[in-house]
Amino acid sequence: MIKVGINGYGTIGKRVADAVAKQPDMEVVGVVKTRPTHEARHAIKNEYALYANNMENVQTFINEGFEISGTLDDLLDKCDVIVDCTPGKIGAMNRPLYESKGVKAIFQGGEKSGTGDVSFNAQGNYATCLGKDYVRVVSCNTTGLCRTIGAVEKKYGVKKARVTLIRRGPDPGNSKKGPVNAIVPNPVTVPSHHGPDVNTIFPDMDIMTSAVIVPTTLMHLHTVIVEMNNPATTAEIKQLFKSTPRIILVKASEGITSTAEIMEHARDLGRKRGDLNEIAVWDESINVIGNELFYIQAIHQESDVVPENIDCIRAMFELTKDADESIAMTDRAMDL
Amino acid sequence: MIKVGINGYGTIGKRVADAVAKQPDMEVVGVVKTRPTHEARHAIKNEYALYANNMENVQTFINEGFEISGTLDDLLDKCDVIVDCTPGKIGAMNRPLYESKGVKAIFQGGEKSGTGDVSFNAQGNYATCLGKDYVRVVSCNTTGLCRTIGAVEKKYGVKKARVTLIRRGPDPGNSKKGPVNAIVPNPVTVPSHHGPDVNTIFPDMDIMTSAVIVPTTLMHLHTVIVEMNNPATTAEIKQLFKSTPRIILVKASEGITSTAEIMEHARDLGRKRGDLNEIAVWDESINVIGNELFYIQAIHQESDVVPENIDCIRAMFELTKDADESIAMTDRAMDL
Repeated sequence: MIKVGINGYGTIGKRVADAVAKQPDMEVVGVVKTRPTHEARHAIKNEYALYANNMENVQTFINEGFEISGTLDDLLDKCDVIVDCTPGKIGAMNRPLYESKGVKAIFQGGEKSGTGDVSFNAQGNYATCLGKDYVRVVSCNTTGLCRTIGAVEKKYGVKKARVTLIRRGPDPGNSKKGPVNAIVPNPVTVPSHHGPDVNTIFPDMDIMTSAVIVPTTLMHLHTVIVEMNNPATTAEIKQLFKSTPRIILVKASEGITSTAEIMEHARDLGRKRGDLNEIAVWDESINVIGNELFYIQAIHQESDVVPENIDCIRAMFELTKDADESIAMTDRAMDL
Repeated sequence: MIKVGINGYGTIGKRVADAVAKQPDMEVVGVVKTRPTHEARHAIKNEYALYANNMENVQTFINEGFEISGTLDDLLDKCDVIVDCTPGKIGAMNRPLYESKGVKAIFQGGEKSGTGDVSFNAQGNYATCLGKDYVRVVSCNTTGLCRTIGAVEKKYGVKKARVTLIRRGPDPGNSKKGPVNAIVPNPVTVPSHHGPDVNTIFPDMDIMTSAVIVPTTLMHLHTVIVEMNNPATTAEIKQLFKSTPRIILVKASEGITSTAEIMEHARDLGRKRGDLNEIAVWDESINVIGNELFYIQAIHQESDVVPENIDCIRAMFELTKDADESIAMTDRAMDL
């Protein structure tokens, strides 16, 4: 059993903890939180050993009546790998500590690509990450692009991909960020960083991305154009997506006309927090014209990377060298 | 002086009326309203003769204390051209009436392209519409695409264009429509109708569009990719857009980071209703890589088609056969 610590028990960290706890070959040895928030209460309720990031905050937790198991430093002594789910850019600052302790670490997509020695997407480059010590799981958007465009690349070859990302403002549990009533090019320059980030998984892919942020919290949405090397029909692409793990097709004809209905569908699935770990592609949007494939997909930014973190652990410890086997194991345990 | 009637004094109609009133070669002979709303009060205040759409509603206006000049039928007897600014699909139903009265008519982009005998964009196909009796001015989004992509077509040639339209939900003065918190593919199929609509102006252009609706009221936004036939640099495209009428460049570096700041900029210009009749292209977004041109533009859906309606009248009466002359005259009168 691989002993996993989680540094940062927020949007991603709490989900990774739950996903690790469900796997047969790894366990959660503790989670780190900086402040005694409502999320820290949930960690205790979920019976995860709770650690503070430093001694000063240990006292803060004790003052608030939390049972606390020690500091991040103590947790690092107990785990084989730490999954760093701290806010963006903090992971890079933490890496020297992990190195000094000789603990493997996973970083999230909010970190620059150099923070890990390599970036990870299970269906894209599992084999590249076998045995690696410091790996970065790419962001939610990049994960979504890698899953669908990667599937097309594998079967038909991608000549080039052109994507517009329409990004949610904040996550649903965050009431502080905007925009309230505007569309924000973010970045205002083209290409956005997402294309180059896909290149950390598919180095030779010709992909360009533009991105804007809009006033919604539920999901990101991508309009995708892929020029394929080899011919495929619309029906063949639908079949490809249907048969690829972690991609689902949704239908406007069944009432799923927006990201809101996708999330309602996810809630009806009964998964914890109403998560949708799969990428949702609108069936009706898939259209092949000549060598160009068009489609529209939605990304649940809070949860799509969670199974990736699990597979990443398996690759780093070479629990299996077969990506498909890891993916199947993860998805079975998470009931995807 | 061309005598212009306006059927429908709402978002577009009231703006077209004001724009006509400013021109030296045409005048507003009356505007038609169905109900005694606050907008009808403004028509009276602006000294436009007010007509009801039928006799029954004449009485409704009188009951509410409005001075009313008659019905649409009466207005048609007095005008050379009627600008139909009724809600989408009503224009098509009105055309037989206009024909029976022998009055020329302009329809708006909410109508199907067949509602006019030809579609109109001043910079795109002014000459095609010379002397025509029934013309449709293309929609706000199509107008925006025609202005910028059309400028590139004219100077460098367009091999193909691929656009994602991120559309506002309702107009700012409409509190009834959504979406509230979702991104809505609209249509869910690709291509959306916007590409074919551009083809009503540029019949041979290879253009494909995807469209979504988001929870904002201020402007539409487009991410545009154009493959050019002839080489151009980023600087040359910036210069092209700068020198093209009805296109302005805005800079994130000057604080215009979203559609909200573009509209604030427009309000500072001091134009009535805070309108921005020009298409706003983000300077920093313009990027030429190989033969591909990338940029991001924003469209003020309430006002960009207004000067087009003016030029359309001039073309239909052949007041000038020169598009550039008409555009210059319109823009001077509107202080663009």
